[in-house]
Amino acid sequence: MNQIKSILAELRKMKNIALILTAAFLAVFQTSCMKQVPKRKELQFIFPKGNLGPAQNFTGNAWATSLVANDSTYNTVVGNVYFEPGARSNWHTHPAGQILIITDGVGYHQIKGQPRETIRKGDVVKCPPNVMHWHGASPEIGMLQMYILPKTEKGIVTWLYKVTDEEYNNENK
Amino acid sequence: MNQIKSILAELRKMKNIALILTAAFLAVFQTSCMKQVPKRKELQFIFPKGNLGPAQNFTGNAWATSLVANDSTYNTVVGNVYFEPGARSNWHTHPAGQILIITDGVGYHQIKGQPRETIRKGDVVKCPPNVMHWHGASPEIGMLQMYILPKTEKGIVTWLYKVTDEEYNNENK
Repeated sequence: MNQIKSILAELRKMKNIALILTAAFLAVFQTSCMKQVPKRKELQFIFPKGNLGPAQNFTGNAWATSLVANDSTYNTVVGNVYFEPGARSNWHTHPAGQILIITDGVGYHQIKGQPRETIRKGDVVKCPPNVMHWHGASPEIGMLQMYILPKTEKGIVTWLYKVTDEEYNNENK
Repeated sequence: MNQIKSILAELRKMKNIALILTAAFLAVFQTSCMKQVPKRKELQFIFPKGNLGPAQNFTGNAWATSLVANDSTYNTVVGNVYFEPGARSNWHTHPAGQILIITDGVGYHQIKGQPRETIRKGDVVKCPPNVMHWHGASPEIGMLQMYILPKTEKGIVTWLYKVTDEEYNNENK
């Protein structure tokens, strides 16, 4: 009977070891594996985040990087903007228009007098010369966008007033 | 003694169960977790792959997508090219020059008479008007690049002859 008691004691030790091993295994699985499946997809940055845009021209945080500076050979300015969720530009115009290329995320673009458009990774939108528009991120997901300003001999940008929360939130406005 | 034999039999069964559980766990770990770590990073496409460029203008496979078609408002053409590893354009010129923006991968750009440059994700390079150049992927890694052609009222492109293997492989040429 003593032998049987000893064996039972050993079995109990084995059970405890099994429980500890299972817990350790689950912990390793969670840290080494689950980390690779982020709950929310991060935006893919191609260029540096850049510098925070001035508060008088933007609502929320918009970060800008220059990619092509103005010169008389190409007369083209190119840059990249990262709009944090909820961030947007003021209303503004470009003397020769603007081309926007969305490289990641989700955002909005609105031309004055037209409905707000939702724009996503891979979309290309244009705003004609001297027409008022604004662009920015959606409330929940940020937006990475490149901009191209052609014919810079005509000028770059004229900044106007803030986009109100009502304008930002109303897709039919 | 019969009781001890029974206990030993139970212990052997437990050992077998432990082995089966370990094998099953490793199999699950490998399929659900290891798949998320590809051996080689795939290029991040922003735009559709597009159509295969004509063999008379390219060596290897180069896929092109139009993003902004030519018009008289913006006078700017924008597109995206995916060069498979080893693929490159012919030598060519643009009447108003060209801006290249590398969005992923590794490639080469060479302006006639200058050394071959290696270009990577996030790089921006320019080729002046009426200057011969070629661009393409590195031998091992493909390249995704956007191109901007300004001042299209001056024209788009003049295609010239093939880039030889010697030119492609010689970084000092």
